[in-house]
Amino acid sequence: MILILQPNVDMRGGEYRRLMEALGALPNVQARVHHVSGAEQTLTEVYLIGDTSSLAVEEMQALPCIERVVRVSKVYRVIGRHVDDRRPSSFEYNGVTFSQDSLTLFAGLCAVDTREHVEAMLKALQEQGLNCTRMGAYKPRTNPYSFQGHGRQCLPYVFELAGRYGIRVVAMEILHEAHIEEIDEALAQAGRPTGVMLQIGTRNTQNFELLKSVGRQQDYPVLLKRGFGITLEESLSAAEYVASEGNQRIVFCLRGMKTNMGDPHRNLVDFAHVPVVKRLTHMPVCIDPSHSVGTREATPDGILDVQHATAQGVIAGANMILVDFHPDPAKALVDGPQALRLEELPNFIEDIRIVREAYERRVGLARSV
Amino acid sequence: MILILQPNVDMRGGEYRRLMEALGALPNVQARVHHVSGAEQTLTEVYLIGDTSSLAVEEMQALPCIERVVRVSKVYRVIGRHVDDRRPSSFEYNGVTFSQDSLTLFAGLCAVDTREHVEAMLKALQEQGLNCTRMGAYKPRTNPYSFQGHGRQCLPYVFELAGRYGIRVVAMEILHEAHIEEIDEALAQAGRPTGVMLQIGTRNTQNFELLKSVGRQQDYPVLLKRGFGITLEESLSAAEYVASEGNQRIVFCLRGMKTNMGDPHRNLVDFAHVPVVKRLTHMPVCIDPSHSVGTREATPDGILDVQHATAQGVIAGANMILVDFHPDPAKALVDGPQALRLEELPNFIEDIRIVREAYERRVGLARSV
Amino acid sequence: MILILQPNVDMRGGEYRRLMEALGALPNVQARVHHVSGAEQTLTEVYLIGDTSSLAVEEMQALPCIERVVRVSKVYRVIGRHVDDRRPSSFEYNGVTFSQDSLTLFAGLCAVDTREHVEAMLKALQEQGLNCTRMGAYKPRTNPYSFQGHGRQCLPYVFELAGRYGIRVVAMEILHEAHIEEIDEALAQAGRPTGVMLQIGTRNTQNFELLKSVGRQQDYPVLLKRGFGITLEESLSAAEYVASEGNQRIVFCLRGMKTNMGDPHRNLVDFAHVPVVKRLTHMPVCIDPSHSVGTREATPDGILDVQHATAQGVIAGANMILVDFHPDPAKALVDGPQALRLEELPNFIEDIRIVREAYERRVGLARSV
Amino acid sequence: MILILQPNVDMRGGEYRRLMEALGALPNVQARVHHVSGAEQTLTEVYLIGDTSSLAVEEMQALPCIERVVRVSKVYRVIGRHVDDRRPSSFEYNGVTFSQDSLTLFAGLCAVDTREHVEAMLKALQEQGLNCTRMGAYKPRTNPYSFQGHGRQCLPYVFELAGRYGIRVVAMEILHEAHIEEIDEALAQAGRPTGVMLQIGTRNTQNFELLKSVGRQQDYPVLLKRGFGITLEESLSAAEYVASEGNQRIVFCLRGMKTNMGDPHRNLVDFAHVPVVKRLTHMPVCIDPSHSVGTREATPDGILDVQHATAQGVIAGANMILVDFHPDPAKALVDGPQALRLEELPNFIEDIRIVREAYERRVGLARSV
Repeated sequence: MILILQPNVDMRGGEYRRLMEALGALPNVQARVHHVSGAEQTLTEVYLIGDTSSLAVEEMQALPCIERVVRVSKVYRVIGRHVDDRRPSSFEYNGVTFSQDSLTLFAGLCAVDTREHVEAMLKALQEQGLNCTRMGAYKPRTNPYSFQGHGRQCLPYVFELAGRYGIRVVAMEILHEAHIEEIDEALAQAGRPTGVMLQIGTRNTQNFELLKSVGRQQDYPVLLKRGFGITLEESLSAAEYVASEGNQRIVFCLRGMKTNMGDPHRNLVDFAHVPVVKRLTHMPVCIDPSHSVGTREATPDGILDVQHATAQGVIAGANMILVDFHPDPAKALVDGPQALRLEELPNFIEDIRIVREAYERRVGLARSV
Repeated sequence: MILILQPNVDMRGGEYRRLMEALGALPNVQARVHHVSGAEQTLTEVYLIGDTSSLAVEEMQALPCIERVVRVSKVYRVIGRHVDDRRPSSFEYNGVTFSQDSLTLFAGLCAVDTREHVEAMLKALQEQGLNCTRMGAYKPRTNPYSFQGHGRQCLPYVFELAGRYGIRVVAMEILHEAHIEEIDEALAQAGRPTGVMLQIGTRNTQNFELLKSVGRQQDYPVLLKRGFGITLEESLSAAEYVASEGNQRIVFCLRGMKTNMGDPHRNLVDFAHVPVVKRLTHMPVCIDPSHSVGTREATPDGILDVQHATAQGVIAGANMILVDFHPDPAKALVDGPQALRLEELPNFIEDIRIVREAYERRVGLARSV
Repeated sequence: MILILQPNVDMRGGEYRRLMEALGALPNVQARVHHVSGAEQTLTEVYLIGDTSSLAVEEMQALPCIERVVRVSKVYRVIGRHVDDRRPSSFEYNGVTFSQDSLTLFAGLCAVDTREHVEAMLKALQEQGLNCTRMGAYKPRTNPYSFQGHGRQCLPYVFELAGRYGIRVVAMEILHEAHIEEIDEALAQAGRPTGVMLQIGTRNTQNFELLKSVGRQQDYPVLLKRGFGITLEESLSAAEYVASEGNQRIVFCLRGMKTNMGDPHRNLVDFAHVPVVKRLTHMPVCIDPSHSVGTREATPDGILDVQHATAQGVIAGANMILVDFHPDPAKALVDGPQALRLEELPNFIEDIRIVREAYERRVGLARSV
Repeated sequence: MILILQPNVDMRGGEYRRLMEALGALPNVQARVHHVSGAEQTLTEVYLIGDTSSLAVEEMQALPCIERVVRVSKVYRVIGRHVDDRRPSSFEYNGVTFSQDSLTLFAGLCAVDTREHVEAMLKALQEQGLNCTRMGAYKPRTNPYSFQGHGRQCLPYVFELAGRYGIRVVAMEILHEAHIEEIDEALAQAGRPTGVMLQIGTRNTQNFELLKSVGRQQDYPVLLKRGFGITLEESLSAAEYVASEGNQRIVFCLRGMKTNMGDPHRNLVDFAHVPVVKRLTHMPVCIDPSHSVGTREATPDGILDVQHATAQGVIAGANMILVDFHPDPAKALVDGPQALRLEELPNFIEDIRIVREAYERRVGLARSV
């Protein structure tokens, strides 16, 4: 970390002394001071060496005399891509590979409502040869009086049906560490017919206690959604929380930024960050077009905005798609109206296939240069 | 709730039928349809009557044929001010009254570091006749490798010293329900020499499980910070979560909105919402100038930006101030550089006194009209 | 326009009377009042009929007694897609067709610096069979001391060279109505060897006097960039300004939204709005990946973020691409470092071709349903 | 300006060579290279000396090998406060002093509608001993079909009445340089009975051609509103545009930031930046509470939000207040419903007087330390 001081700092002044005292108090950190004298001014820089990773830029920036702070080492120690870094950008879970090179579709119910709907959904997936799904049992809702999900009650039939229809991985949001146990118990009782990817929603991206909980266990991979209201860097730091506790099987999910600049969409779709996350980290990148777009509006050419957003993620190399379907959207208890209908599934898959093929041709072209 | 349909809806069409089916499926809700025929178009509206509080506007908005949705009842059932609502806008805790008419200063340490600093801080408060403070034991940090607070280890001496120096209420952030128990145990062991106000930070404003935890207990009042990245309405709904679980002793805290529009301040100060929260709800309103402003910069007249922001909250009727002080800011482990110094405390208090007096004269003027 | 009043409005009260007086004062507008009595409350609505297009929703919203305002007619009278609207979504200019079905590439210099660079650029375009370009003569710069473009001085050689290399349309930003005249004169003196599309930049999206100027003339089509800091609806209203003055040959350009949520990109790429603009209006939609992304960073697969953003626009049906190239980016006077290099042009085109073909297959698939 | 290169840059590599070539091409700029070798890495920095003010940080940042760019000199050469800068922070115009120490109220009509309303307004001001006002003749409107102001037609009676009622300065928004001439002619024909402060609205903050126009003339001072969607630094750069053309008589106006984070206010009030502008520049600072707040809602204590916002600006040292009044708000053609009523003027003034007095006591307290 480098501290660039304000020009012409007085080395004998009180502010400078206070700076040096503050730096002297940092544990396991050495400070080396460099001066450069120019015609107009003298510039001073302090290089911090040692255990600087625990220092926050903004805290250093607030010390006296500081003009600017530069961090030269990576903030994402575990999840980050480093120079000459040969660690893999993939992992396997319950027979399914998640990688920066693969693409996996998780179509399913935003919120589990009835056993019949779950079964209809899973049957449709099996018919299309898919083996992953999303199923919401625990639902975070802005309004305390809204439906909050069926919770643990629905887990037995969800897992049983998942097994019956050949589903290997169910993405399921959790709001509390107790939900991990509930899921684990229900899976055990059902004989582990399927697997679960623990999903952390956007409202909990900086719920650090929850991040630590999913990071400390190694049984289930984690799907971490980007937080709204914070920068991409801060959301990636949340992923580093999980990884720093020991669990590196993380998929990072873009789901749109909450701002009225996104109107008439529910959020401002942020899938241009797909390549950014792949460049900065080893994590496979998921997109959530349903919550990003939030409507079933279509263009004059007959393609839904949700499909366009999906295509935009895939053409840039997205590795996983989380999308809401429902056998009867009008009866869905949560976000029904944005859901696609089961009869739209084959077309949705074919649309993705076309775009993924184009992405692969793009990669081939880039590699041929 | 009123659903305004798109003009000239075809009452025999499939979309309209799907809308009616969806509405028919809502439990305990009746739908009444009204048509108004005009020269150019026919307008149709559907009034939903009954148990509509669990319906989300955005979900209704997404049904077929809908032009717009209007909610006519209050969203804030418990915390809200209603017509002819004579419930009090105040509560007492451990001998201190929190009210929409009072003003209480919580100066203290953002993060507890050493017993010596805690003692120096509390001694200074006592000398100024103050009986509340802020003390951070559990610290949420963006970076997993940053200092995370001393946690339960520091509670015994914090509470003991608080009692010794006459502190009645310590505002203390918690990140997990377990922290409530830890605090309760430490208080009990110390003989309950002081009280605690449980603080929910901005990263946990929509951590609904934590909100329910602080809402279910009645021992400690709650200081809920506004969330960044969400609307004021959504943050107030978070307060309603707490209240709906049974605990109505809530103070709502404005702490600035996270956006680069606030530069060079750390956040965009949002204290113009002080009157808004007082109008919409019964909650006393706190301001957090330290985290809003985030610097020790001053104007040419010698007044710090932190003081100006404080004054802006107070002149509009703020009821509580949360502000960072530190006996030795350069040695503070978190946010030290934004902290005020102990020797600045008397002046800070006098500055507030001048402004509060002006606020009271303003109220007198308004009432004389 | 419909005004929904607050529930249980007192029809004999002063507020209601003031509302009615305000409405009575609106020129050429009739108000019809409707009451609906329910068990819990009486609802009142006022329908405004007649010349309501000049009424702003926010102004109506601020009248006494108003709960909410609904505008039932389209705000985009000229540019909008209306029910049973058979007007074309295309226009031709100087032999080039701009349409919601076509795709045209405008690669070129962000800022004209030297005749040699202009010639190298245009030669490269001709070699690739392209007949459109972008060339910046007038540059709006945040800092008054930055290079402001060569202005009218460079127009003669830009137009002469454009003609020589077969360019039919040059997209060129203007900051003032005088620039239209300067361009017109320079084109006339050069014998009109090429055409110009007048570009309005994001800082001038709501410079209404400039919008009226380009709207009043019919000689040149207009490329209108979305404004930052305003909603999509407000930017589309800016296009309506141009159209309402008589010039309907408008291409609407998405260029990213300015917010730190877009970091590390220069802006938050907003190309998910491509389908939205095509649905709401007849305008062809342009994307500007260079200014949206603002870097030359690439993914591990070797594809630049700028290319990924371009692909995201094209896969969703974008009709025009504005992209910065430069023969020698290090010497460019404006935005050089984000520019692509001439030797990258063939690959860039091939990448687009792959994606456009996929888009067309997507449309075919959607139409086959 | 300092360029900090990425660690361990290869001095013999192509990227480094391209950087050096780019720097070599900068006119009148010298580059000095410094290396610092550490245990883990070698750091390289390049100091640019000479005519660096025309270099944009973002352009330098985009050069190869760059880690970060630091600008060491002030960006606000003319308007900025510099070390040992003894230039005044005030100016006089038509007998009225505008200063960082004074406070002047500009109450008036957002939009001129009738001669009768103008006269009633000005009469009320005179009765209160005020000699400044705001009067909108040219109105920028989002919707092209909204009322656009009476323009030059109303100027003769506005100026005549201003003179008759002792008004020395009328703040009046202009949208085009032609409006300066129209105003000048109308003033001349009326015998210059009053003065005009030319107001640049938030939609034109980066309309650089308009900024240059008001900067090139010396007859009228300028009231520049902060732009929405851009940073404070960028808005201050707009003021520097005006000053760099020769006119330093500028008042900078805060008017709220456009974001839904400000709901239910029209904008997110940004008056915490009053001290920031006073610290960074010599400009007096104006606040516009009417457009920031945009409603007539009040707190339970009977004080309007507009008054609270005004008080928040004044308690932090604002120097000018722009506020909408109207003799008959229901009949106002623009923003009527947010306007205060004439009978509220005395109370509004008294409220400000209380707060200003408190501000002055605060300054006295700060100076006594």
